[in-house]
Amino acid sequence: MIYTVQVKVMPLKDLLDPQGKAVMGGLKNLGITNVADVRIGKHIDLQVEAATKEEAVAIAEEATKKLLANAVMEYFEIEVKERLTS
Amino acid sequence: MIYTVQVKVMPLKDLLDPQGKAVMGGLKNLGITNVADVRIGKHIDLQVEAATKEEAVAIAEEATKKLLANAVMEYFEIEVKERLTS
Repeated sequence: MIYTVQVKVMPLKDLLDPQGKAVMGGLKNLGITNVADVRIGKHIDLQVEAATKEEAVAIAEEATKKLLANAVMEYFEIEVKERLTS
Repeated sequence: MIYTVQVKVMPLKDLLDPQGKAVMGGLKNLGITNVADVRIGKHIDLQVEAATKEEAVAIAEEATKKLLANAVMEYFEIEVKERLTS
């Protein structure tokens, strides 16, 4: 069975996010002033082959901890979105 | 009222995603072989000041079309996640 697992990797809330600050400056220059804060991270879609949903999440978590996220600077959230046909 | 709006910006499905391909190679080198495909995009959290949820979405959509996403190469999804206190 193939599961679509979505991983969201964001900069830790206590850290500065220079990319987000740059985007906020850009929005102000475009005349969009209602945005109070911007934070930018990564969104990763994984197609995981696994027998169960739990196994798919475990594989995605291993992949995220080993490669996709840097725990010193980022936190992550994992969500299984849908089940595709086998 | 401040709304937290989440914007997901992903490479179009028909286009190659070199970053995703590189991560897939990295996962194989780490011994994680159950991942069939990886696609990587951006996740953006906006704090939007608006009177209604619909207005918040409209502002986020304008910001995304003007600055955050490149419609030639990317598609986006907008989701209002929660309502914070004013």
